[in-house]
Amino acid sequence: MSKEHIKVGLLGLGVIGSQVAKVLIDKEKELCRQAGTPITLHKIKVLPADLDKPMARALPPGLLTIDNDSFFEDSSINIIIELIGGEEPAYSYIQQALEKGKHVVTANKEVIAKHGPELIEVAQRRGTGLYYEASVGGGIPLVAVLEHELKANYIKSIHAVINGTTNYILTRMSKDGIDFDSALKQAQELGYAEANPANDIEGIDAAYKLAIMSTLAFQSYVRPGDVYHEGISRLEARDFKYARELGYALKLLAIARQCDSTIEARVHPALIKDDAPLASINGVFNAISIEGDLVGRVIMSGKGAGPLPTSSAVIADVLRAARNIESGTACRIELFNTCKTIQKINEITTRYYMRLTILDSSGVLASIARVLGEHSISISSVIQKETDTLSRTAEIVIMTHPALGYSVASALNDLGRLEVVKEVNNVIRVEEQ
Amino acid sequence: MSKEHIKVGLLGLGVIGSQVAKVLIDKEKELCRQAGTPITLHKIKVLPADLDKPMARALPPGLLTIDNDSFFEDSSINIIIELIGGEEPAYSYIQQALEKGKHVVTANKEVIAKHGPELIEVAQRRGTGLYYEASVGGGIPLVAVLEHELKANYIKSIHAVINGTTNYILTRMSKDGIDFDSALKQAQELGYAEANPANDIEGIDAAYKLAIMSTLAFQSYVRPGDVYHEGISRLEARDFKYARELGYALKLLAIARQCDSTIEARVHPALIKDDAPLASINGVFNAISIEGDLVGRVIMSGKGAGPLPTSSAVIADVLRAARNIESGTACRIELFNTCKTIQKINEITTRYYMRLTILDSSGVLASIARVLGEHSISISSVIQKETDTLSRTAEIVIMTHPALGYSVASALNDLGRLEVVKEVNNVIRVEEQ
Repeated sequence: MSKEHIKVGLLGLGVIGSQVAKVLIDKEKELCRQAGTPITLHKIKVLPADLDKPMARALPPGLLTIDNDSFFEDSSINIIIELIGGEEPAYSYIQQALEKGKHVVTANKEVIAKHGPELIEVAQRRGTGLYYEASVGGGIPLVAVLEHELKANYIKSIHAVINGTTNYILTRMSKDGIDFDSALKQAQELGYAEANPANDIEGIDAAYKLAIMSTLAFQSYVRPGDVYHEGISRLEARDFKYARELGYALKLLAIARQCDSTIEARVHPALIKDDAPLASINGVFNAISIEGDLVGRVIMSGKGAGPLPTSSAVIADVLRAARNIESGTACRIELFNTCKTIQKINEITTRYYMRLTILDSSGVLASIARVLGEHSISISSVIQKETDTLSRTAEIVIMTHPALGYSVASALNDLGRLEVVKEVNNVIRVEEQ
Repeated sequence: MSKEHIKVGLLGLGVIGSQVAKVLIDKEKELCRQAGTPITLHKIKVLPADLDKPMARALPPGLLTIDNDSFFEDSSINIIIELIGGEEPAYSYIQQALEKGKHVVTANKEVIAKHGPELIEVAQRRGTGLYYEASVGGGIPLVAVLEHELKANYIKSIHAVINGTTNYILTRMSKDGIDFDSALKQAQELGYAEANPANDIEGIDAAYKLAIMSTLAFQSYVRPGDVYHEGISRLEARDFKYARELGYALKLLAIARQCDSTIEARVHPALIKDDAPLASINGVFNAISIEGDLVGRVIMSGKGAGPLPTSSAVIADVLRAARNIESGTACRIELFNTCKTIQKINEITTRYYMRLTILDSSGVLASIARVLGEHSISISSVIQKETDTLSRTAEIVIMTHPALGYSVASALNDLGRLEVVKEVNNVIRVEEQ
């Protein structure tokens, strides 16, 4: 067997890129021993603005280039690591690299979720590989586990706390009783949330990750657009307080399930029992519970983001690519480009938590129960809270038995029309996990 | 690429073997699709006594054989699954199969822990593979994660609840306040403990598993004999009660750590903070916390034993072997046959919980504190419990600051000689996890 010299090209020198470059340089000797073949960081393609960064200045001269052509045309590079993030130009770069027969390692959830099948098709056609362990769950080896280790299973469901930013915000709201805006501001100050946090707090980032996991788990392409998502910004401190009183925690949950030929995939805030494994996952930690017909439930948790955990996954993929190059093995990544039927969010049945502001007078609860009953929704428990004597209003929290999304939507519509209901403050699904 | 027909030979038709046979038959079509090549269960080698089992009678005729030669000499078999368990004849069978160029999948922790390096050497020499994901943690993919996914990391430590039998017993003792013998009897009635439970309750089974994990994590052969082990039979219901009062849970913990060129590996009961992730792992569940320099702490949990989870891991390995056979790739399993220095148990420093029966008179605590002080052990807290007015004795629980094992051993020796100490009831390490 020939000992190929593996030369790595790196795209991007941001926080993650810098860390990966550092590991490739600092651990070079160790990684060569692991791979059984020399692996060196050969070239880093950066933007002109990056050249002044301290990390750029600390690197050996000659490693950096701002020229696309000299990077992509360098035939000695056999693995390209893409760590630019975002859809473009990352997508075009990955495509270009695969077309040139390079193995590509990426942490880019958006590109993989949106274009995974096309890119895998290119990789297969060119006899190369696309590796994306780092795109979901940071250093938690989710992709490998779904792709290989649980392969004998029919995967029934996935439940995950998969976005560190929102989990940090929800943890602060729950533990410190602060409101969403303050918690978001804290997260931004600590570098856990971006200046424009929409992707995280609206559940878009989690939806990309769930699309990638579902595709692997259900062996059928789940597009990001197939994943229903709802953000966390409408949650209030009092929702956490009431949830806790009822024995629940409040999390942004990513849930996917397959049943016969139908798939459901959704990201939204949810109440889960406070002794459920995911309920104790706090701060920037991620956790994923996978249920298979043979294995039962396997839960994996760890830091889901950040330069160090992400570099753990990126380098594991580099080692995998190096072994494939060395042994001349074709890419083992499966292509799932057929789609199953996706269940609409309102076709799903769950229990619900409803918080309403009502007129504090007799007979109100009866009116509400009647409206819910008309839509086949039955109440499991009610707590009346915080009467405001001045405005003569009260707050009530209703927990329902399992109800169909459509029924809940029309019931809420009807409830909003009742004189005695001043406001429907919040409606949150309750999940068994 | 040629499409090899993969023919599987199965050794053993016990509980696990029967389940694996069932999956190979029931999921044959699905597994062929996954592997991209036909995979069939070709022959099962059983003992004469097995022929009367309902499972044996339900199998297609011609599948079973009681003849070693016709099994091992069948050149059409390319993967052999060993599910006999125990050291012999399993070890000889695996060796024989590898020598004949078969790929071998096994769930046998004893054989892998004791003879892993020799067997891997045979596999490498013969260009075949040895796969043992099922030997540790049932369906939790620990071997793959340590072998591949965390490869970029320097693994600092492993903390694990890795034996379902003892964890079930300890959970019952903790939750129901029952004593060890009753909990063991319950576990035996439910099939969670064997008639001769020594391997589990003495920590031997956990020591095999820790040896396998440590070898992979520290990339150096850790022999089962290198793992210190202590069982759970001396724990009493009151230890759980006191631990809980102090804010701790009591678990049989498997701990391994590397520091420079030294390794520590030990299995013993330990107090861990009741909010530590492993504290909430109850019943027959297993959980493993792995700490790496890049990834931080990754925790995996699930059912660590039983026919279904074990078959998940066995079949994943069969698929891996099938892919290697199909692509003609050499075995990628690394051989770690050098050993690092193993730290002696008494060279390790931890905090300690000590439960003593003392004379209920003044000055006793001072005498005890003096003896501990002479051995450089300082007390972090003391609780005096349950005075028995008749015998004029009392029970005290002492929590120490970190102390060296040797110091504790000699201090206990001296304490035992004090007139005022009636008995040293229990001494348990306290671990930060």
